[in-house]
Amino acid sequence: MSPATSTAIASPNIAFIKYWGDRDHDLRIPANPSLSMTLGGLQTETSLTLLEPGAEDVLILNGARVSGPPLARVSGFLAHVRAVAGRSEGAKVDSVNSYPAGAGIASSAAAFAALALAASSAYSLDVSPTELSRLARRGSGSAARSIFSGFVEMQTGQHDEDAYAKPFLPPDHWPLQDWVAVVDDQPKPIGSSEGHLLANTSPIQLTRVNDAGRRMQVCRHALIERDFNQLAAIIEQDSNLMHAVMITSTPSLLYLQPASLMLMRSIKAWRAEGIEACFTIDAGPNVHVICTSEHSREVERRLRSFEVVKDLIHATPGQGAKLQNTVAT
Amino acid sequence: MSPATSTAIASPNIAFIKYWGDRDHDLRIPANPSLSMTLGGLQTETSLTLLEPGAEDVLILNGARVSGPPLARVSGFLAHVRAVAGRSEGAKVDSVNSYPAGAGIASSAAAFAALALAASSAYSLDVSPTELSRLARRGSGSAARSIFSGFVEMQTGQHDEDAYAKPFLPPDHWPLQDWVAVVDDQPKPIGSSEGHLLANTSPIQLTRVNDAGRRMQVCRHALIERDFNQLAAIIEQDSNLMHAVMITSTPSLLYLQPASLMLMRSIKAWRAEGIEACFTIDAGPNVHVICTSEHSREVERRLRSFEVVKDLIHATPGQGAKLQNTVAT
Repeated sequence: MSPATSTAIASPNIAFIKYWGDRDHDLRIPANPSLSMTLGGLQTETSLTLLEPGAEDVLILNGARVSGPPLARVSGFLAHVRAVAGRSEGAKVDSVNSYPAGAGIASSAAAFAALALAASSAYSLDVSPTELSRLARRGSGSAARSIFSGFVEMQTGQHDEDAYAKPFLPPDHWPLQDWVAVVDDQPKPIGSSEGHLLANTSPIQLTRVNDAGRRMQVCRHALIERDFNQLAAIIEQDSNLMHAVMITSTPSLLYLQPASLMLMRSIKAWRAEGIEACFTIDAGPNVHVICTSEHSREVERRLRSFEVVKDLIHATPGQGAKLQNTVAT
Repeated sequence: MSPATSTAIASPNIAFIKYWGDRDHDLRIPANPSLSMTLGGLQTETSLTLLEPGAEDVLILNGARVSGPPLARVSGFLAHVRAVAGRSEGAKVDSVNSYPAGAGIASSAAAFAALALAASSAYSLDVSPTELSRLARRGSGSAARSIFSGFVEMQTGQHDEDAYAKPFLPPDHWPLQDWVAVVDDQPKPIGSSEGHLLANTSPIQLTRVNDAGRRMQVCRHALIERDFNQLAAIIEQDSNLMHAVMITSTPSLLYLQPASLMLMRSIKAWRAEGIEACFTIDAGPNVHVICTSEHSREVERRLRSFEVVKDLIHATPGQGAKLQNTVAT
C-alpha cells in the first residue's frame, strides 16, 4: 500500500459548563456533563501520514519534533485507533496551531479532535460523528466537544459507548464573542489531565457534580432565549465552582493569579454598568471574557487598557472538525 | 438608684474553622461549628453607663457619637439584656478599639463580647461564662468565642440554649502568631451580617456545613499535637471553602482582591520552602498570616517587603473578656 496523508482541522472550545474530574480516567469519561462554544477563528491543523507497519510514531508540533509524554499520549491514542481498525502502520503526525501555546486555550481539545478525524480517515475507520466524538474523548475529554460546531453539549455517560458530545445550537444562533485575556503565557505547574485526578479530594466535588444538571438546564435555557444576564450568572458560577473544587483539593490547586482576580472583579463591575460581558476561566490564570457582539468593541477597548493583559485573542462561534483532503501518492 | 458605669475589655478572634451562614439569623445561631484563636494584643474597651429608665441609648465609637444601623444593633442587643434583667434604664455605650477599623479584624466580635460583659454587669445579670457566651452571640455570632481565652471552639446548637462557645486549649499551649496583612482598609461593600443571609444561595453551602465536623476534628488534632503542616492545610482549606461559598452565592460575593491572591500564592510558596506560615481570610480582602513563633520574624520581614501590604497588625493567643471595674457614683 502506498503512503497516505489525511489532514483535518479542528477548533478549541470554551466550556460554559465545565467538566472537572473523571468518572473513568483511562477512558476519560467525565464526572459531569458540560456545554461549550466551539471557538471559530482559532484552529489546529493536523496531518497524519501512514508509515511502515510496526514503525514508531513520530510527532511534530508546530514544526518541532516532540518526544516524551506528548508523543506517548498521541501514540497511545493511535494504538487504540489501530486496534479498532485492525491496522499496524505507524504514523507521522504533524500538527500546527494557529494560536499561541499557553494562551489559556485548551489546545488538547482541538488537537485530539483533529487527530481523531485525521487518524480515522488515514486508517479507514468509517465512523459516525458520534463515534468520532467518542474517539476524540479518549485523547482529551473536551476534544469530544470540538468535533461539533457552535454550541455543543456533552453528556457524562457511564461507559465508553454513551460518553460523547452532540450539537446543541448552531453557530449563527447567537454570535457571542470570546476575548481571551492572556495574563500569563507560562506552562501550568499542574496540567488538566493531572488535575482531574485530584478533583475527588475536594469535599465539594461531589456536590459540584450533582448540581451540574441544574447548571446545564439554566445554561441551555439562557442560550435558547439569548438571555445574557442569565447566561453570565451561570457561566461565572460554574467557573467559580470549578476553581472552588481546585483550591479545596489536596494538594490545593490555585490556578488564579492576581491579574485573573483583577479582571474578574472588573468584569463584574462592567456588567453592573450594563456591559454584556462575563468571565470564565479554565485550568490556568487566563480569562475568557464572553460578551455579546453589541458590546464586543467596548470590551476589547477596556481589556486593552490593562497593563496585566499581555495578549488578547478573539474567537466567535465556529465550525467543528473537518477533513481537508486525502492525498494518496 | 445612682448611675453606674461598667467597663469590660475583650479581644477579637480569628477563626481557623469559620462560621458562615446562620441556622437562625435573628438568634445568630451559626450554621456550622467553628474554632478560633483569641487575638491577644488587640482589644476593645467598652464602658456602659446606665441612664434614666426609658432613656434612649447612646453609642459612642472611638470617641464619635454614632446613630443609624450601628446604634440600632446595639440598642436591640441592650433591649434583650434589659428584658432578661427586668430593667428599663437606657444606656450610654462608649467603645474604643485599640486597632484600626477595616483591618480585616472582625471588630463586632470583640465589641459584642465586651458589651455583653459590661451590660450584664451594669444591669446586674448574674451570668455564667456559658450564659455570657450565649448572650454575646446575640450581638454577633463570633462574639460568643471572644468571651474565652486562647483557642476556643463553638458548637452549632439547635436553640439559643445550646449555641455557645467554650475554651478548647489555653493561650500558652502554642504561641502561634497572627500577622494581619492589611491590603485594603475601605469598608466592605457587603458586611458579614448581610453576607450570612446569602450563604444558603450557594449550591455548596450545605456540603461545607456538613463537612465542618471533619474539619473541626482535624483542626483540634493539629492544635493538640502542635502539627503545623496539618493545621496549615485545614486552615487554608476551610478559608477557601468559605470564599468558595461566598463567590458561588447569588449575588456572588467576591471579597478577595488581587493583593489577597498575591499573598495567598506567596504564602503557599513559602510553606513549600519550609516556612511555617499559612493564610486565612475573613469576609474581606485582608490576609491573616498564621505562623509559628520560630518563623514569625521571617514572615514579618517578607510581608513588609510587599508594596500591596499597607499595614501589618500583630497578635498572639490572648485572654477572653474581662470586667475592668464598676464605679457607682
